[in-house]
Amino acid sequence: MVNIAVLGFGVVGSGVVELCESNADKISAAAGNDVYVKYILDLRDFPDSPYKDRIVKDFEVILNDPEVSLIVECLGGSHPAYDFSLAALKKGKSVVSSNKETVAKFGHELLKTARENGVYYLFEASVGGGTPVIRPLSKCLAANRVEEVCGILNGTTNYILTMMNKYSESFATALASAQEKGYAERDPSDDINGVDTCRKICILTDIVTGKFCDPAKVDTTGITAIRPEDVKTVEKWGGAIKLLGRCTLVGDKYAVMVSPFVVSADRMIASVDNVFNAVAFKCDAAGDVTLCGRGAGKLPTASAMVSDVIDAVSGKAYRADWSTPEESREDDFVSPDDVADRFLIAFDNGADALARVNAEFGEVRVIDDATALYVMTEQITGADAKKHIANLEKLGLKSQTALRVLL
Amino acid sequence: MVNIAVLGFGVVGSGVVELCESNADKISAAAGNDVYVKYILDLRDFPDSPYKDRIVKDFEVILNDPEVSLIVECLGGSHPAYDFSLAALKKGKSVVSSNKETVAKFGHELLKTARENGVYYLFEASVGGGTPVIRPLSKCLAANRVEEVCGILNGTTNYILTMMNKYSESFATALASAQEKGYAERDPSDDINGVDTCRKICILTDIVTGKFCDPAKVDTTGITAIRPEDVKTVEKWGGAIKLLGRCTLVGDKYAVMVSPFVVSADRMIASVDNVFNAVAFKCDAAGDVTLCGRGAGKLPTASAMVSDVIDAVSGKAYRADWSTPEESREDDFVSPDDVADRFLIAFDNGADALARVNAEFGEVRVIDDATALYVMTEQITGADAKKHIANLEKLGLKSQTALRVLL
Repeated sequence: MVNIAVLGFGVVGSGVVELCESNADKISAAAGNDVYVKYILDLRDFPDSPYKDRIVKDFEVILNDPEVSLIVECLGGSHPAYDFSLAALKKGKSVVSSNKETVAKFGHELLKTARENGVYYLFEASVGGGTPVIRPLSKCLAANRVEEVCGILNGTTNYILTMMNKYSESFATALASAQEKGYAERDPSDDINGVDTCRKICILTDIVTGKFCDPAKVDTTGITAIRPEDVKTVEKWGGAIKLLGRCTLVGDKYAVMVSPFVVSADRMIASVDNVFNAVAFKCDAAGDVTLCGRGAGKLPTASAMVSDVIDAVSGKAYRADWSTPEESREDDFVSPDDVADRFLIAFDNGADALARVNAEFGEVRVIDDATALYVMTEQITGADAKKHIANLEKLGLKSQTALRVLL
Repeated sequence: MVNIAVLGFGVVGSGVVELCESNADKISAAAGNDVYVKYILDLRDFPDSPYKDRIVKDFEVILNDPEVSLIVECLGGSHPAYDFSLAALKKGKSVVSSNKETVAKFGHELLKTARENGVYYLFEASVGGGTPVIRPLSKCLAANRVEEVCGILNGTTNYILTMMNKYSESFATALASAQEKGYAERDPSDDINGVDTCRKICILTDIVTGKFCDPAKVDTTGITAIRPEDVKTVEKWGGAIKLLGRCTLVGDKYAVMVSPFVVSADRMIASVDNVFNAVAFKCDAAGDVTLCGRGAGKLPTASAMVSDVIDAVSGKAYRADWSTPEESREDDFVSPDDVADRFLIAFDNGADALARVNAEFGEVRVIDDATALYVMTEQITGADAKKHIANLEKLGLKSQTALRVLL
């Protein structure tokens, strides 16, 4: 029997404990050993929980119990998650985490410590929740050069954009509805500003490139400026606005960005709605691979964490590895300004607006001119898009929205 | 360095050889060892191939070379694929296969032989081609009870159905176009009759249930009877006709079937078109997980096979295991007759047709009555659907089409 400890008895932690009990037979068969939750770390009391006898408040109890060989970290935030994880790895205990903030910031160090101590640091649940993403990328696509990763990585914002599309709601109304349904936190800033998506695309980028991608350095735009008219125009054109984390090959380096995109209906991820997550990989051999599932929630996240527990117990887990911040160089990544796409841009309407836009951009395609002049450009770099928009602004023609397009 | 041999230098075999060369750095890093293709087995000569010096015609050369520790079998068909695989496993060589016929029929025995000899029998490429399916199912979803598997598992038929939908083509025209594009063989019977899909859903069922699912015993209907008017009616209703392999939990046993289904547009797999494959899993913890990618083709299939090579070389592969035909019992599986779904049925039009249908089925919903009377039933078992259709037939009301509906 393998004894494990679960850190944090919130939504995800309690899901892990429940799943270990309800599907014990499947887990034991897959791991080749019984898995028993010996401790649950939480500062709160749970007098009515059937697991109340296993709850401890002092991490040292877990750390110093040699019977505990693996820790499931469901704490969220960097501290004490990072500190507890590091201490556990140094004591020769494997760590399984769903904590994207800790993985994105400190994954390199925790992975190194795990290797040095002959144990695992695993984090399938940190990206895509219950959607298999990290293992398919690391294992199934291991023979491929990945040319692009585009991910709907945050269920809250995908739900908001879906509501804006389906019911023509404003951003504020859709956010309120997401909060009411429990899909958004009371403070939703990390979701709606793209910070959560940024952490997740950084983790995928770390794996794809082997280089530390610092979340603090990634161009990140959230969805707060998206308007119902933008959503409607894109739907009429034949697509959907999705908040994407994107890592894309330009020459022999990658550019990383987080931003709302116009996604053509021809792409599978355009039809991934509500709280679902999806990641589309473009690979040199496998071609296009899309993975879709529940990005959050108690049991989906627990499912991914327990799959890591099984891999660790059976000794068949994958060891990711990427550079440390100290090994990083300024030019490890290129800027999104170097990435060429079509852009959908809304300009203020006006008698000569189209003529002026065409004069600046070269020929553009008019998508709609009811509420504003929506045009689609040819493929141009981010730098050129910015330059043309600024030039028109100087001439008095204001832009309202500018979004990259994935055809 | 690990020496491997590739059996068969056709489309897939040559893809494996090319990929091992073009992405040698990635493969070596992931496997922790260089992988070298020492032999290629083929009866033909390839005087212009850069690999001509590695081609051998006698399998014994490979079998008796102790330097060869792994064999990549790209032969297709059961023989000699099965015989060569068995011989290699007995000699302590791991085998990687894309051969769904051999895996579906003889997988149980080859897996057992691999275990007995401390080597691997791996077959990620046998289902979904370049789409990650078997590893995500076996590893990522290992903590789940899988309640349903629905897969678009054959690119040829998906292409044909897509053409029928997009261009209102007849089955025959769409098949001819698939053959012209190289998406269908000159003898397409295994594809269009559902035999290929059947082998693949059997493999997934073997993994999900741990029980040998005999392809010869699975209710299998192909797409040859699908008419353009059926496709159009379903599109107008809001969905698509897809040939699915389906394994679904009924009580505590599974039913397996291969048939064209009406798939509601709300399901992701409804929008998986052309030669793409997709598998949707419904799981008790992870919820709905959908995996989509290229189901065939040189490099996508090679990508999946090389991912198995990497797993075998690094010793971290998953060992599937299911019962042998001898251990199987008649009641391991239940009949599709026991599975309840809504049905879309087309009846001959006629003055009192709807009244007679309602009298027999209870209230049905009329979907269309232009070319025929298309109705959708409530949820009824396959047995009840057959019974009602037969009763109406006896009364002189003929049915033209009857398809299960996935809402």
